[in-house]
Amino acid sequence: MSAGWFRRRFLPGGPLPEPQPAGPRSSPVPYHRPRFLRGSGSSPGATDASRRPDSRPVRSPARGRTLPWNAGYAEIINAEKSEFNEDQAACGKLCIRRCEFGIEEDQEWLTVCPEEFLTGHYWALFDGHGGPAAAVLAANTLHSCLRRQLEAVVEGMLASQPPMHLSGRCVCSSDPQFVEEKGIRAEDLVIGALESAFQECDDVIGRELEASGQVGGCTALVAVSLQGKLYVANAGDSRAILVRRDEIRVLSSEFTPETERQRIQQLAFIYPELLAGEFTRLEFPRRLKGDDVGQKVLFRDHHMNGWSYKQVEKSDLKYPLIHGQGRQARLLGTLAVSRGLGDHQLRVLDTNIQLKPFLLSTPQVTVLDVDQLALQEEDVVVMATDGLWDVLSNEQVAQLVRSFLTGNREDPHRFSELAKMLIHSTQGEDGAAGEGQVSYDDVSVFVIPLHKQGQGSCGH
Amino acid sequence: MSAGWFRRRFLPGGPLPEPQPAGPRSSPVPYHRPRFLRGSGSSPGATDASRRPDSRPVRSPARGRTLPWNAGYAEIINAEKSEFNEDQAACGKLCIRRCEFGIEEDQEWLTVCPEEFLTGHYWALFDGHGGPAAAVLAANTLHSCLRRQLEAVVEGMLASQPPMHLSGRCVCSSDPQFVEEKGIRAEDLVIGALESAFQECDDVIGRELEASGQVGGCTALVAVSLQGKLYVANAGDSRAILVRRDEIRVLSSEFTPETERQRIQQLAFIYPELLAGEFTRLEFPRRLKGDDVGQKVLFRDHHMNGWSYKQVEKSDLKYPLIHGQGRQARLLGTLAVSRGLGDHQLRVLDTNIQLKPFLLSTPQVTVLDVDQLALQEEDVVVMATDGLWDVLSNEQVAQLVRSFLTGNREDPHRFSELAKMLIHSTQGEDGAAGEGQVSYDDVSVFVIPLHKQGQGSCGH
Repeated sequence: MSAGWFRRRFLPGGPLPEPQPAGPRSSPVPYHRPRFLRGSGSSPGATDASRRPDSRPVRSPARGRTLPWNAGYAEIINAEKSEFNEDQAACGKLCIRRCEFGIEEDQEWLTVCPEEFLTGHYWALFDGHGGPAAAVLAANTLHSCLRRQLEAVVEGMLASQPPMHLSGRCVCSSDPQFVEEKGIRAEDLVIGALESAFQECDDVIGRELEASGQVGGCTALVAVSLQGKLYVANAGDSRAILVRRDEIRVLSSEFTPETERQRIQQLAFIYPELLAGEFTRLEFPRRLKGDDVGQKVLFRDHHMNGWSYKQVEKSDLKYPLIHGQGRQARLLGTLAVSRGLGDHQLRVLDTNIQLKPFLLSTPQVTVLDVDQLALQEEDVVVMATDGLWDVLSNEQVAQLVRSFLTGNREDPHRFSELAKMLIHSTQGEDGAAGEGQVSYDDVSVFVIPLHKQGQGSCGH
Repeated sequence: MSAGWFRRRFLPGGPLPEPQPAGPRSSPVPYHRPRFLRGSGSSPGATDASRRPDSRPVRSPARGRTLPWNAGYAEIINAEKSEFNEDQAACGKLCIRRCEFGIEEDQEWLTVCPEEFLTGHYWALFDGHGGPAAAVLAANTLHSCLRRQLEAVVEGMLASQPPMHLSGRCVCSSDPQFVEEKGIRAEDLVIGALESAFQECDDVIGRELEASGQVGGCTALVAVSLQGKLYVANAGDSRAILVRRDEIRVLSSEFTPETERQRIQQLAFIYPELLAGEFTRLEFPRRLKGDDVGQKVLFRDHHMNGWSYKQVEKSDLKYPLIHGQGRQARLLGTLAVSRGLGDHQLRVLDTNIQLKPFLLSTPQVTVLDVDQLALQEEDVVVMATDGLWDVLSNEQVAQLVRSFLTGNREDPHRFSELAKMLIHSTQGEDGAAGEGQVSYDDVSVFVIPLHKQGQGSCGH
């Protein structure tokens, strides 16, 4: 992506991305639930179609189907907010082969051994909006993008420290010293590969949706185990936490119009034409009214963490770029998240104002050094879409996890049962959430046990 | 500041800021040391002129002159790196009057009581570069900018929660609820005032230096006590830490081309014309050479926290936007800091490439709730320019502070003596810094005791 691309794509004067090319449209992305749910039953209902607000089915993999690391998974569809469950999930083994050199370049000195590979594991949750298509595409695609990106750098990952040159040919004898001084480690290549994979997947989704004439976007939360470390990459408002006997460690941050206010306001400052004169980039405690004109009211702009007062002008009465608090906060009155995949065609209702320039597909990546943790039997990572976290706090989830696992040490399916129990807890059952704390959203949960699996099995 | 202003000022096609207006030039900003050093002696030398690397004078206020809160101060000039000591300092009492309404607006209902005021205290360090003028102007000016900015919002600061409207006239009955929901507190107005004061001061410095035909810039580190809280605002690479018996708390972060890499690279991505084809915005472990072309080397771009590999093209051989590590890191090969005041005219040597668009004058503000600390006799804030922190770690400074204050409980001048001792420690004396750990830079230190002064005396 170049700045020129950004200007051509989003700013007036550039060629319009629409209308669609004249070529034949590809068929729409078919809706489906995660592959690992095939053959599964559900409780208490049976199919998506049978749901009533009080009897929506909780689905989880069939008893015979084991997910990587014996992870548990469960999901529930929303209370008729949308026709489909817009959450999606994926998991599996990642087999990373060494890149084959010597094709484009003359590098006959490199012994290519296609059998050599690195294995890891992958769990991902996608929370769709504006239709299920983007989340389905992301669940079908992101792991392949990640595999490709990792294969492109795996040579560097296998060295004790990534070499300056991927091919190993030192141009300058002090190259290792420069890499050392910058503090570049193998894990930085995995972080870079995750960042690139999210971008690549976003491009794929953009092309596929445009070709099939569909729309939509999704958040993405991914956990990857590789070489004794767990990488958590997040773009959106899902969340992953590590729950241990005496510790809760948050492994992701949420990206919403509120948490990314300054970045979003700054873009509108740099490119005011993105707001087409319809929105104000300034933040006020509430939307201003005609009576406020001439008065001094609280506000903040892109460069401010604190607040100040400004005299209200007529242009301040426009709809705010970011409006509302907490779960109600919306970007351009439209979107509740500020990072994710897709949304290439999304516009503010009845206008030509695009959302995409304000969205990032880049995830934030957290690294958990699993090999350095003195792991215990009940140490798990809980990954879930916002439907869970809207009604349960980290502390409530940790309490549910600890008491469930302590009481179910012998059950080989305990992580799956725990995932189901967490979903039930969002429905006002099991007494965890307070009265009236019921999630009407789609909710999806992975419970990933770290004990034993964390060490060795994800190694080289 | 508007985006239009930014484009006109910095991008090709806009009117050139130079040549200077034809009007008469004002006289140059006179060099001086801080006012509170008047009448002070110095040890071991006497004047700036007498310095040799082994006998530069350590200066501190005369014994009879007490700084706010009995704070200690000391400074030393650099080892002939520049003609003048480019550090500057300022401190004093802040008297904030209520704003007088009823002049521009018809607000006869407001009883103006000009005697009512809020008092606070102010300590500031400025580390100049490219000449002493910007730091001198900042030391002369910033406290007045801050007083003005605080006076503009003091009505709001005195309320239990800042009102939506400064005048108190509620347009909407639920206004307090909106302010509550946004979590806006009185301290956010002080943070906003500090942010605005830094910007205002930067504008003043830009105008004054242009008028007098001078150049230069400076970092700014400010501590302000107000209503039982200590606000630390920092733009640059000075540092403030709180030292207590069992705790070291860092009160500021440094802003350098390394710590602000992504912000700086992103601006170059958005406005590539700022680099005039002379620099590459990409980061590599070292500067690339002709032999690297065609190879795959480690790199990262603005959106990346991790690293990846790219095939080197000829354009990657350009000088990097940010180059070097640690203390050697430079922005556009020129500047070691990425935030501060001034530098409006600064250009890359022998080019027309400007530094200013990449610099921020906005400080980061940390709030220390002094009233909530169970303060002890020896709890102090140490503020110093980078010359101190280059040779002493936070832990070394804390150790020096603790052992000195424990051994000098009765000395009324102990904070001043401690400041001098810290300076001597940067000169390889007093055995604190390791062998060869000598600072040849200007060094300035404030030691601010919090005990007793922290509570009450800075109140309303």
